[in-house]
Amino acid sequence: MTDRVVLAYSGGLDTSVAIPYLAKMTGGEVVAVSLDLGQGGEDMESVRQRALDCGAVESIVIDAKDEFADEYCLPAIKANGMYMKQYPLVSAISRPLIVKHLVEAAKEHGGTHVSHGCTGKGNDQVRFEVGFRNTNPDLEIIAPARDYAWTRDKAIAFAEEIDLPIEQSTKSPFSIDQNVWGRAVETGFLEDLWNPPTKDLYSYTEDPSLGNAPDELIISFESGKPTAIDGRPVTVLQAIEELNRRGGAQGVGRLDMVEDRLVGIKSREIYEAPGAMVLIAAHEALEDVTVERELARYKRQIDGRWSEEVYDGLWFGPLKRSLDAFIDSTQEHVTGDIRLVLHAGSIVVNGRRSSHSLYDFNLATYDTGDTFDQTMAKGFVELHGLSSKIANSRDRESK
Amino acid sequence: MTDRVVLAYSGGLDTSVAIPYLAKMTGGEVVAVSLDLGQGGEDMESVRQRALDCGAVESIVIDAKDEFADEYCLPAIKANGMYMKQYPLVSAISRPLIVKHLVEAAKEHGGTHVSHGCTGKGNDQVRFEVGFRNTNPDLEIIAPARDYAWTRDKAIAFAEEIDLPIEQSTKSPFSIDQNVWGRAVETGFLEDLWNPPTKDLYSYTEDPSLGNAPDELIISFESGKPTAIDGRPVTVLQAIEELNRRGGAQGVGRLDMVEDRLVGIKSREIYEAPGAMVLIAAHEALEDVTVERELARYKRQIDGRWSEEVYDGLWFGPLKRSLDAFIDSTQEHVTGDIRLVLHAGSIVVNGRRSSHSLYDFNLATYDTGDTFDQTMAKGFVELHGLSSKIANSRDRESK
Amino acid sequence: MTDRVVLAYSGGLDTSVAIPYLAKMTGGEVVAVSLDLGQGGEDMESVRQRALDCGAVESIVIDAKDEFADEYCLPAIKANGMYMKQYPLVSAISRPLIVKHLVEAAKEHGGTHVSHGCTGKGNDQVRFEVGFRNTNPDLEIIAPARDYAWTRDKAIAFAEEIDLPIEQSTKSPFSIDQNVWGRAVETGFLEDLWNPPTKDLYSYTEDPSLGNAPDELIISFESGKPTAIDGRPVTVLQAIEELNRRGGAQGVGRLDMVEDRLVGIKSREIYEAPGAMVLIAAHEALEDVTVERELARYKRQIDGRWSEEVYDGLWFGPLKRSLDAFIDSTQEHVTGDIRLVLHAGSIVVNGRRSSHSLYDFNLATYDTGDTFDQTMAKGFVELHGLSSKIANSRDRESK
Amino acid sequence: MTDRVVLAYSGGLDTSVAIPYLAKMTGGEVVAVSLDLGQGGEDMESVRQRALDCGAVESIVIDAKDEFADEYCLPAIKANGMYMKQYPLVSAISRPLIVKHLVEAAKEHGGTHVSHGCTGKGNDQVRFEVGFRNTNPDLEIIAPARDYAWTRDKAIAFAEEIDLPIEQSTKSPFSIDQNVWGRAVETGFLEDLWNPPTKDLYSYTEDPSLGNAPDELIISFESGKPTAIDGRPVTVLQAIEELNRRGGAQGVGRLDMVEDRLVGIKSREIYEAPGAMVLIAAHEALEDVTVERELARYKRQIDGRWSEEVYDGLWFGPLKRSLDAFIDSTQEHVTGDIRLVLHAGSIVVNGRRSSHSLYDFNLATYDTGDTFDQTMAKGFVELHGLSSKIANSRDRESK
Repeated sequence: MTDRVVLAYSGGLDTSVAIPYLAKMTGGEVVAVSLDLGQGGEDMESVRQRALDCGAVESIVIDAKDEFADEYCLPAIKANGMYMKQYPLVSAISRPLIVKHLVEAAKEHGGTHVSHGCTGKGNDQVRFEVGFRNTNPDLEIIAPARDYAWTRDKAIAFAEEIDLPIEQSTKSPFSIDQNVWGRAVETGFLEDLWNPPTKDLYSYTEDPSLGNAPDELIISFESGKPTAIDGRPVTVLQAIEELNRRGGAQGVGRLDMVEDRLVGIKSREIYEAPGAMVLIAAHEALEDVTVERELARYKRQIDGRWSEEVYDGLWFGPLKRSLDAFIDSTQEHVTGDIRLVLHAGSIVVNGRRSSHSLYDFNLATYDTGDTFDQTMAKGFVELHGLSSKIANSRDRESK
Repeated sequence: MTDRVVLAYSGGLDTSVAIPYLAKMTGGEVVAVSLDLGQGGEDMESVRQRALDCGAVESIVIDAKDEFADEYCLPAIKANGMYMKQYPLVSAISRPLIVKHLVEAAKEHGGTHVSHGCTGKGNDQVRFEVGFRNTNPDLEIIAPARDYAWTRDKAIAFAEEIDLPIEQSTKSPFSIDQNVWGRAVETGFLEDLWNPPTKDLYSYTEDPSLGNAPDELIISFESGKPTAIDGRPVTVLQAIEELNRRGGAQGVGRLDMVEDRLVGIKSREIYEAPGAMVLIAAHEALEDVTVERELARYKRQIDGRWSEEVYDGLWFGPLKRSLDAFIDSTQEHVTGDIRLVLHAGSIVVNGRRSSHSLYDFNLATYDTGDTFDQTMAKGFVELHGLSSKIANSRDRESK
Repeated sequence: MTDRVVLAYSGGLDTSVAIPYLAKMTGGEVVAVSLDLGQGGEDMESVRQRALDCGAVESIVIDAKDEFADEYCLPAIKANGMYMKQYPLVSAISRPLIVKHLVEAAKEHGGTHVSHGCTGKGNDQVRFEVGFRNTNPDLEIIAPARDYAWTRDKAIAFAEEIDLPIEQSTKSPFSIDQNVWGRAVETGFLEDLWNPPTKDLYSYTEDPSLGNAPDELIISFESGKPTAIDGRPVTVLQAIEELNRRGGAQGVGRLDMVEDRLVGIKSREIYEAPGAMVLIAAHEALEDVTVERELARYKRQIDGRWSEEVYDGLWFGPLKRSLDAFIDSTQEHVTGDIRLVLHAGSIVVNGRRSSHSLYDFNLATYDTGDTFDQTMAKGFVELHGLSSKIANSRDRESK
Repeated sequence: MTDRVVLAYSGGLDTSVAIPYLAKMTGGEVVAVSLDLGQGGEDMESVRQRALDCGAVESIVIDAKDEFADEYCLPAIKANGMYMKQYPLVSAISRPLIVKHLVEAAKEHGGTHVSHGCTGKGNDQVRFEVGFRNTNPDLEIIAPARDYAWTRDKAIAFAEEIDLPIEQSTKSPFSIDQNVWGRAVETGFLEDLWNPPTKDLYSYTEDPSLGNAPDELIISFESGKPTAIDGRPVTVLQAIEELNRRGGAQGVGRLDMVEDRLVGIKSREIYEAPGAMVLIAAHEALEDVTVERELARYKRQIDGRWSEEVYDGLWFGPLKRSLDAFIDSTQEHVTGDIRLVLHAGSIVVNGRRSSHSLYDFNLATYDTGDTFDQTMAKGFVELHGLSSKIANSRDRESK
């Protein structure tokens, strides 16, 4: 049987050239699979046709926007998913979805191999390949950049050599990955950590110093899921899209960070994720009102570990599933409204209301109606501090 | 021997009236102790004199600003101390220092009792009293608000009754605690969580929407300690003061949150802590560059626990000391410069440089000079994902 | 309406005297509720009648053995529930079940108060009372020992005074709590930590040095639940009972420990829990074979926290529920057989088999059939150690 | 310059043959380094001479027994170092010490390469190689088994071919690693997890069912370090050796487990570590008496992580160092005596005494002298359970 390589196809130069290249290297056929994850840009039908023009025997386009929002972005909202407390896992949550569709395409179209365009020093190769191994270990994996030392220069030369029917893009200085959850940019001059980002790096967000009028909005959640903005019902996808627009207009969602990669090195990254950051800020504020203290304290650790697992490419791992079970069990009452102001790069929560609130006015107030029995505090203080009191007495005596 | 009550004295109405009141209730004498923690406002000599005028047998004023900055704020910087990921522990880190000085004053001036003005439903009573128990369990503790059901109305009536020589302040609607590390405000109308804060709540910060020009600055650290701003050497205290000014001018450092109190209730709090927030943001950014990945991941958990222990009044507890030992051991190489822009309420890091950096340009770059051996990745990916691959295969088979 | 006190009734002297005493102190009526948790000893009908004889208006006996085994012991097995890595939570898991039945009895019989016989310095008062507050905060709680400073001597005097129709037990030197999950003993001479336990302390276990022949057995689990012993199907209750017998005969399950109580003090405790210890040892051994590494590592932390929450009386707390959600999600494949030898106080696992095993002979073997690709290791080692390698190089350079 | 390979030399067939083999493969010279870690067996001088006979240009023997005990075993005692709660890290803590001496020997003797005899599917290759990379990244690493697909059969054939002057051992069915901290055995028939271990597997321990008389002993610690047994002062090494003898005579210290290897597979392992297990049991019992509750709870997590880091070959990593800083800070008061009985495979603690004890008889006793103020408990219980009480009320209302 002829080998068939199922390729994660973006429509760009690299994966376009990869089509004839993979065919040549393997002696097989190439099936191109492209996902619409809300990355915008080119029409997906053009992408599909280009793969065929480049020699793919099949070219499949999948509109996965809602699936991505509902099954990948929503768990990230519930987990307040931020790697290193900052990065909303833009690329990290898209890779397992791409894996899933490539594996399905392989099953349907007789694929024997899967292939991706990632290099051998980034996180995405790990996410792709661990994903493939976890969901279908029988598929052979080809990573041309790593396994064939395939580079952009070689790709351009090869495209010319075989007279590939695609326009020769002038080499962009940026390496970009984007989807509806955010946008990631790397570029050479940022490899000097002292260089600030330049304005042309950004696409999802305006300059925060433009001086637009503040935008106040209300996000409603039901059991951790965003369901309305300013009272208008929304799907998760619509919520992200609207907040990308409104947050982006206020310069909200930019991130300039040095990141600990899974492969052991540190790298400089620029991200834009206005919708993600607004939704997570609102979600955390609602959790503060509706989740009990000890659960909330423990969930912060669980959230941190969830983010590390997802960052590390272990979306399909057993630990990730059990962390999800914990997180899901915490979301039942995360229902209510959060009011925020977006302005000049800032997200400021200034109001919360919830029929599931744990805030008890009568216990909290210092005014009339106070029902908190202050005499209880004396005993609490005494026993709360007893073990450390005994330890300190011992320490003094044994000196 | 006559009882002597050592009172944490602020100079305000409540603790002023407490002086004759405590004398009356205990039949003893009152020693007033006031600390200058950079809270600003009134001259400390006036505070000292007022206590005497109100009947204190001793009135002591201690300039503890540098001690507070060096021994309480600096550990908070090293621990990126934020309770619930947001609150920089403004009051929480000041209580143990006040405790320490009250206990010392009790020793010097024959104190048998210690007293504070906190209510029985807040965190500060716990911090004070656990602090006393931990450092000198022989001292009797009196909390008039809790133990005598002492209220503001009773205090005003008592002040009039005994003709106390202090001006009758019109009752402020705000309950405030402030020091150089920040400012905390509670007030009745915020007890409705849907009400936004009003402008008159703020004192350390300007309105972020004023449209001031951005302020770019460089903070230098040595082993986790801020040592210079824009190249000018500073003490920790000076760093906080300067960043309070510059951050405050940009509206940086405001916080509106619902907080999980130690006594089991949720409460609404407004904070302002520009210096604290800028310093911690810069410190975290420098850690991202200088602390190794696995250590950084674990330190985030340690930092979270440190913040909970300090919030919970266990500054003097054995766990806090061991967490400090961990944290101190991580700071040796947290040395370098962070460039930030403060503007319109936002803190944006846009540059880092360090002679202790773990960022390796040659490993990170995608350009000429790349020394990362990409062939290593294949084996890494395979074994990194092996245990979850085996688990997923088992799961499929056993279905 | 007349007050009705629903009392957790054991049948012993203390709670028998408490019936008329509570009636007297509250001016109300007493409803006695007794649970059969497999504690053995007296016939439950005698217990029921005695309460009536002592003046209870209602006396209810509930056979809760299977409920206890299925809904309280089984979660403890799944969580490998051991406080301080040693104590299988004998009393801690029984309190919430008693609470549940007292609250139900209060609802059915018009109870306005609930009462228990625990002292004010132990854990069980906390477990009872937090349980009541969590499940029905409207019930008033009376703890005679604490609230009325009720002591054993007073109880005996009161029993004589009112001529209570119970035999006067000679005062036992032991304070005992027991159920099918285990037995707890405290006694005066053990309050000197250097004194070893004496033989008369034990009831569930024989002397381990007796020299009985070893007992080899096979325990089968399905999704974490013990379902057969030596091939004979068992309920959870039957499994515990049989292993109490067989383990007890081998002296297995004794524990002599110094325990960190929730109220802040350390105390010396003797436990016997042969069934619990054998089941948890077997369960852990089966998890070692069927749970993936990263999940297993994290579950150890979760198990530890579960044990602390349950020990601390927070069985009904939200965190406990979410920890259960995590744990339950890990048990699906904990299915298989564990062979153990019980002998002279030791539990030794010496065989495991499971159709859900993650052990892969072909990957593990060093003999023919080895399918592990050792060339993968080189890259793994390199990247696994890369971040610490870079850190150590930095450390050497910056010295 | 001629290449020089510094080889971790055990004296056995494999590493003996490796000497001429490495010389042949690299065209260089071989320096043999052998450590006495208390593994017993052959005289070290014979080992040294054999390496020379096999062609080594230098052969170095280092008595590292005390260094191993003081700097590797002692930290493991302080950390209660047990991987998966069971395995006392026998091989894991010896690898970094061997690494250290190989790197030193390379410096002294002009070594350009380092080599070890481990396979490519075990943990030890990772520990060795990450150790080398962390301490001297300039050294080239050769792992013949992995890099040259070198096997035992090839080794025997090569030995015959070159007429190597060593006795041809009949192939032992066991793969063994041993040192004073313990002994590890793997063998083919145990690769079936249902097979029980056979008696010939054991060397450090007698059969526990032999029926020897119990052995009661007292171990004294100072700040976490064992300093005396039965009142006789001991070094750490002497403590381990004596407890290996006395524990071994009682059949104490055997372990049969399925282990999660770092390379992603599960494997069956047999260990014997009587001294290690007795010392850690005693140390934990003393910590129970001398370490404050919150610190003890947190230290259990830290201990678990320490064990994972060491197991995973990251002894020289920055996280390990910071975990040590935490652990060291907890040991100051871990001073006192633990009495244990060793018998028939069991370790039973039955007495503890310490001048640094946190156990307070007057707080713990139920007899005369009780100083615990039980009235404090009411308020404690109320506030300890308040947040979960509020949450449960909310849950009921929102249903």
